[in-house]
Amino acid sequence: MNIQEKSLNYLKSLTAETISNAKSGHTGSALGASSIILALFHDHLRFDKTGTNWLGRDRFVLSAGHTSAMLYSILHLFGYDISIDDLKHFRKYGSKTPGHPEYGVVPGVETTTGPLGQGVANAVGMAIAAEKMHNLFPNLFDNYTYCYAGDGCLMEGVANEACSLAGTLKLSKLILLYDDNNITIDGERTIANCEDISKKYEAMGWNVILVKQGNNYSACSKAISKAKKSSKPTIIIFKTVIGIGTKKEGTSSVHAYPLPIDELVELKTDLGVSENFFIPEDVYAFCREATEKNDNLINEWNTLFEEDKQKYNRYFNLKPYNFEKALKVICSTPDLAGRDASGKVLCDLAEDNYFFGGTADLGPSTKAVVKTTEQPTPTYFNASDYFGLSGRNIHFGVREHAMGSICNGIALYESNLNVFDSTFMAFSNYMLPALKMRAMMETPVLSILSHDSIDIGEDGPTHQPIEQLSQLRQIIGLDVFRPGTYAEVVATYKHFIEKRKPTILAITKSKISNIEASTIEKAEKGGYVLFETGKKPEVEIFATGREIYIAIEVANKIKGASVRVISMPCISEFEKQDATYKSKVLLKSPKIKIAIEASNDNIWHKYIGENGLLFNIESYQFSGNGDEVYKKAGFDSNIISSKINKILSKKK
Amino acid sequence: MNIQEKSLNYLKSLTAETISNAKSGHTGSALGASSIILALFHDHLRFDKTGTNWLGRDRFVLSAGHTSAMLYSILHLFGYDISIDDLKHFRKYGSKTPGHPEYGVVPGVETTTGPLGQGVANAVGMAIAAEKMHNLFPNLFDNYTYCYAGDGCLMEGVANEACSLAGTLKLSKLILLYDDNNITIDGERTIANCEDISKKYEAMGWNVILVKQGNNYSACSKAISKAKKSSKPTIIIFKTVIGIGTKKEGTSSVHAYPLPIDELVELKTDLGVSENFFIPEDVYAFCREATEKNDNLINEWNTLFEEDKQKYNRYFNLKPYNFEKALKVICSTPDLAGRDASGKVLCDLAEDNYFFGGTADLGPSTKAVVKTTEQPTPTYFNASDYFGLSGRNIHFGVREHAMGSICNGIALYESNLNVFDSTFMAFSNYMLPALKMRAMMETPVLSILSHDSIDIGEDGPTHQPIEQLSQLRQIIGLDVFRPGTYAEVVATYKHFIEKRKPTILAITKSKISNIEASTIEKAEKGGYVLFETGKKPEVEIFATGREIYIAIEVANKIKGASVRVISMPCISEFEKQDATYKSKVLLKSPKIKIAIEASNDNIWHKYIGENGLLFNIESYQFSGNGDEVYKKAGFDSNIISSKINKILSKKK
Repeated sequence: MNIQEKSLNYLKSLTAETISNAKSGHTGSALGASSIILALFHDHLRFDKTGTNWLGRDRFVLSAGHTSAMLYSILHLFGYDISIDDLKHFRKYGSKTPGHPEYGVVPGVETTTGPLGQGVANAVGMAIAAEKMHNLFPNLFDNYTYCYAGDGCLMEGVANEACSLAGTLKLSKLILLYDDNNITIDGERTIANCEDISKKYEAMGWNVILVKQGNNYSACSKAISKAKKSSKPTIIIFKTVIGIGTKKEGTSSVHAYPLPIDELVELKTDLGVSENFFIPEDVYAFCREATEKNDNLINEWNTLFEEDKQKYNRYFNLKPYNFEKALKVICSTPDLAGRDASGKVLCDLAEDNYFFGGTADLGPSTKAVVKTTEQPTPTYFNASDYFGLSGRNIHFGVREHAMGSICNGIALYESNLNVFDSTFMAFSNYMLPALKMRAMMETPVLSILSHDSIDIGEDGPTHQPIEQLSQLRQIIGLDVFRPGTYAEVVATYKHFIEKRKPTILAITKSKISNIEASTIEKAEKGGYVLFETGKKPEVEIFATGREIYIAIEVANKIKGASVRVISMPCISEFEKQDATYKSKVLLKSPKIKIAIEASNDNIWHKYIGENGLLFNIESYQFSGNGDEVYKKAGFDSNIISSKINKILSKKK
Repeated sequence: MNIQEKSLNYLKSLTAETISNAKSGHTGSALGASSIILALFHDHLRFDKTGTNWLGRDRFVLSAGHTSAMLYSILHLFGYDISIDDLKHFRKYGSKTPGHPEYGVVPGVETTTGPLGQGVANAVGMAIAAEKMHNLFPNLFDNYTYCYAGDGCLMEGVANEACSLAGTLKLSKLILLYDDNNITIDGERTIANCEDISKKYEAMGWNVILVKQGNNYSACSKAISKAKKSSKPTIIIFKTVIGIGTKKEGTSSVHAYPLPIDELVELKTDLGVSENFFIPEDVYAFCREATEKNDNLINEWNTLFEEDKQKYNRYFNLKPYNFEKALKVICSTPDLAGRDASGKVLCDLAEDNYFFGGTADLGPSTKAVVKTTEQPTPTYFNASDYFGLSGRNIHFGVREHAMGSICNGIALYESNLNVFDSTFMAFSNYMLPALKMRAMMETPVLSILSHDSIDIGEDGPTHQPIEQLSQLRQIIGLDVFRPGTYAEVVATYKHFIEKRKPTILAITKSKISNIEASTIEKAEKGGYVLFETGKKPEVEIFATGREIYIAIEVANKIKGASVRVISMPCISEFEKQDATYKSKVLLKSPKIKIAIEASNDNIWHKYIGENGLLFNIESYQFSGNGDEVYKKAGFDSNIISSKINKILSKKK
């Protein structure tokens, strides 16, 4: 037996033991894919055993995240900070070896995976970022992106969208390692998917390589060598046997089946392994070859990086942003549509700093298009001109979901880039799984979601967001801004750029303006006093976005009591403020508390209580003129103020 | 000029006028696709001019919903209840001719479209339903499903998922009319999509027909004739010119461009049309040929239907459901896992009534699999055995989004079928756009979402739903049940079956049981008194799902005050109850209000106010044993009760 085979056997044994010991996990693909991933790590992958510190490393994404035990065994073998003891704690509370690979928890994991398809789209994003960085710094960045995926990943829409774009962009250094074991949870793959996958990927502009012996180390390694030479993205179709070597091999029942002790012993015996949780020294030595080779590469790269550091910092670190200047730029034009204000701020900030992103075929509508004095015509990242600095925008096509996941991948590759994506707010639904992953990983991407309420008008209820605002606010770790003034728009960009947090910019197509009491500093705090009709206010009105203008009108129409209007562009940021600040903004015991927002979010009851007055929307609206739709839904200061006055007069 | 050409010219003119008059709408594809849709309606489509009453009609879906003006013109020409005056009110508030086609608003519209890709998946669902109904009633159902789609639709993941399944299922009577005008909003299609679409669809098991002269009536008609003979689903690729006949033809700028009056006049002149909003009698007569032919078909069909009515009713109307019996069935086994209780109720109800649906490759996990005494092994609807009654389950593959949209299509086809889909609650995110459309159209589908909270455990935070519950509850018109007792599970099914409303069944993988105070009747009301520790309760605890057991434990540990526990399986249903009922359930002015739910929904503040105590989850959790994860997140009656006791003792 050669050392490759021996190593493969010990890898399989260790993985199967890890899962059996946890009594939970996915033995099937973990055994079936061992050959592919061992060959990749030993013969090809440029990795950093300390984790994700080396910027020049190849990227590896385990899109089929349930194969985690195999990955953790591999990481152990190749010198990452995963010990045998960590493997013994697989899937235990708070361990370094969770059920699915988690970014920031497991060393070397590039992105959190588990929800199928996401990893494939992340990998496409990483490959885009790699090309972009290669073009900015040709000496530093020339890495490959490898992605391991199973049938489940390839069936998901998000993966199909992403792979279609990858073919269009000719991302030649993207290599998809497809574990074609023909088995899904419900049974054979063909019960739900009869695609000719090879032909389909060719049709999408991919290079296709078939490996009939996918469980053979050298067959796997040779195929990867071949893929690296392609001028297109490559899918390698590895024909493998799920749960190879076990009694249940080749069936769906081995998918999530921790081997019972007798079956584990039988498998280990067949593999020639007699020890428990043990790796012999020659296997460690075999893996160390690759680790040491990579340690040398890292040293060489660091020398190169020192040379280019100044240039790198110029792009990503040095220039301080001038947000007040950006505000002045838009203040020169009063009454801009919200989306136009956003677009202008984006372009102004992009003058000195690197923004990279795009829209899902809605550039002319959401205005999320980078133009600069130097490049007054927007430049696009594409197959023909990405050799240069020119492409600052991406045509994502009508692929909202992949756009979101791809941007996660871009930002995961280089979190100093100012990455943005954009579509209509109504279609944020399509991106939700990507936004969730982004929030969970705290990946800095700005989503510019325009047409943020029913005043989109004529396109009708399918295009009029009502529940989207609240659905986005529910995502833990996503900072949702809905600015209504110029300063609040700039504050949103400032929050994203300085805090490097996943941020939503929900922006109206209607006009907004500059209000003196609204400053960038105040807006950044998430909530602040925007307006008061007199001293000692007894009525408190919360509003966001376009509704702050109605709130001010309403305040002026309230009789017999002073009114405070609180603008709340970002509730989650306001929540983070200290008690002193909050007590300055919130009234102590107002006569009545009111919230006005053209959404159906119930979070306002947290502020106005069960007896407060909530002016919102609780039914789908009609196709019609935007202002008319808005007014008919009740967003009219006369209607609102008369209701409040009626209640106030009763309270007297 | 022959009458086809003349009719086409007047159709185009009427459509362009409709959009120009509204000063809003999408001229581009409306002109470019006229030839295809006119040929379809005149030469092929079996339609009912009164709308969607004729069950045997062909189905036509305008997936590229922005092409609505053209559809409305067509509907006018073919005798539907759309007048010239309605066209003059295109996109006006409350009109019958909204910006995008709306189900239930525009006569003849089979499904609401606008968000791209949805219509394609709906059509796949309709084609599945047609096959199913054909197999149940071969004499009655043999219709085709036609779907018009553009580049945008085909780029969407949901369409790719659905078309992949359609190929697998060999849905030969599904015909996709692809308007290949090579233009998207951002520019030429190839800037974002270089796919060889013909080859891709072949790879997915489709028949492909290319029509080079897509703007020619008879070329379009011939291709459709050919497609009808295929043994696979067919995509007809019509090469068309967007905005044909206008100055901006063939460019992206004509997409959403209402022609200004001079350009409109020029177009009309070229088309030989001098009148305004006018159709000559010979054109009406030409269209009337098809309408009359169809009226005759409807009469013939109605005779056939009378013969089969008894059988039809046997499937869909006659048998009363015995929900108490279903409850008794599960009560015979105490402490079932929630998902198992759901699965057993599903199977019991399916004994006498037609359930049809499936899971996204999670049958063994969500237990949403129909088995009956007659068919103890689940039968699957698939290409080889759908000739018969056998297939009651569908393998949707790992395609959550398409599953949701396809089920919308099945239920839209035959709303008397009990249609269900199912996946893990965490992945309901992937389905959200479909659920939104379902709620908007009030399409009766039951979504069985298992593993409804963090106690899924070892799979970690990617699989632990926290925000999903609230995101689903936000969707207007979606009734979200989260049952915690056997009776509540049955009540959820009862609600779905009797109310025919889009319903979510969020169900735990943990054990639940039968509680005497919990009855089907009470649970149906959405909220009710589950438990009291004594008379005159002063503490009020709201809970749902698994948390009701904790709430009862907590109640028993509260010192110095009686406690009422309110179970709230469905908040939206409780909201619909009258004030008398609500006042019986809710305490008048309790000392303290509490909500316990393993989600991050803020809707509870609507009940407990700004000062109530909310025990919920506000951060992502860890991979680990389910019960451990749940407890560490604070769901422990000792922790909760001691907090409450502390507050109560202060209040004394």
